[in-house]
Amino acid sequence: MQLKVMENIMAANDMIARENRRLFDQHGLFVINFMSSPGAGKTTLLERTISALKNEFAIAVIEGDIRGQIDAERIERHGVPVLQINTGGECHLDANMIRNGLDEMDLSGKDLLIIENVGNLVCPAEFKVGENFKAMILSVPEGDDKPYKYPLMFKESRVLIINKIDLLGILDFNIQKVEETARALNPDMVIFHVSSKTGEGFDAWLDWLRKQIREAKRTN
Amino acid sequence: MQLKVMENIMAANDMIARENRRLFDQHGLFVINFMSSPGAGKTTLLERTISALKNEFAIAVIEGDIRGQIDAERIERHGVPVLQINTGGECHLDANMIRNGLDEMDLSGKDLLIIENVGNLVCPAEFKVGENFKAMILSVPEGDDKPYKYPLMFKESRVLIINKIDLLGILDFNIQKVEETARALNPDMVIFHVSSKTGEGFDAWLDWLRKQIREAKRTN
Repeated sequence: MQLKVMENIMAANDMIARENRRLFDQHGLFVINFMSSPGAGKTTLLERTISALKNEFAIAVIEGDIRGQIDAERIERHGVPVLQINTGGECHLDANMIRNGLDEMDLSGKDLLIIENVGNLVCPAEFKVGENFKAMILSVPEGDDKPYKYPLMFKESRVLIINKIDLLGILDFNIQKVEETARALNPDMVIFHVSSKTGEGFDAWLDWLRKQIREAKRTN
Repeated sequence: MQLKVMENIMAANDMIARENRRLFDQHGLFVINFMSSPGAGKTTLLERTISALKNEFAIAVIEGDIRGQIDAERIERHGVPVLQINTGGECHLDANMIRNGLDEMDLSGKDLLIIENVGNLVCPAEFKVGENFKAMILSVPEGDDKPYKYPLMFKESRVLIINKIDLLGILDFNIQKVEETARALNPDMVIFHVSSKTGEGFDAWLDWLRKQIREAKRTN
């Protein structure tokens, strides 16, 4: 019975995600859904990414949080439009929350929509929202056992960004082990190593992202 | 409709949690439900706590993970009985999972049952399992904005253990701000500062915990 309810919820979610996708395609919009544990550094990574790309692409952002708007305020300072979605207790964004949010956004002329999901290494991976791809951030202090313990997140993400590599010398974290266990779950995963604090590793991430956005524009 | 389903699930959960509680009381068992983000250091903190208390109290442990048993293997090395519960995708432990687990445990003569929940700063806070109290661990690398963004976890936890304080000199983390925002949500919250790596701050936490267990034994 409970399973049945969940199946219905998932089917409804996927239907709305496809509608969102059609809307994104109409606007030629590239959409990334960023996920991570609380405190892995999503917002700081987005701030640096937006700062680097905002003169090349017209960017909009959706911030997902259970409550509050402190992340949206941080993003807003970079001069890009931000919509805050408060889930009111829900531990993830779903397609319907995004759809309702889109009613309040002007997507015309936008190239890139960045969605920052609720900090949670489990449930956000279950919900499609119409994105081009999901990206996950794993930070060095979280430890190198996470692919083993939270497999769905690693399976569903096209990209793994290992963040806070400035702490590699201080903390015990085997980056090769993470890459191997992540690729065992998802052989095509694209992996970057960055420090959102120092900027190390951002060139490779940004170059790859530019290429994805331009490629999608050509084929849309 | 969806809300109704959730209400039924919660009512059923609370009923089973009360049954668990009756069983714990029959055995004079003190039960703590530990929660945190992935990688906040629950297992290391438990290892150090168990190591310090296992000659004073008979301890048993339940490890909750989506899959795998690497944490249970770490705990088992300390010579205490451990039961691994794999939730198979669920992002939290609920009362029924614990009840099913209890069928496989010998609780006779035990003083303290430690439950390590799935790493998640949202959903575990919603589910009672029959515990004496919930304890949450917040690690310094996660940042000092967490009470603001994940209020339920702070409201439901009797204890906040701020972990990885050995990183306070390296990372930007305002411990006073965390305490103030946490106490705004939960005025009676008991707060400890520890490093599970160096052992700093453990004496205060262990002394308080000893007192709670003995107090409960006297009044049971």
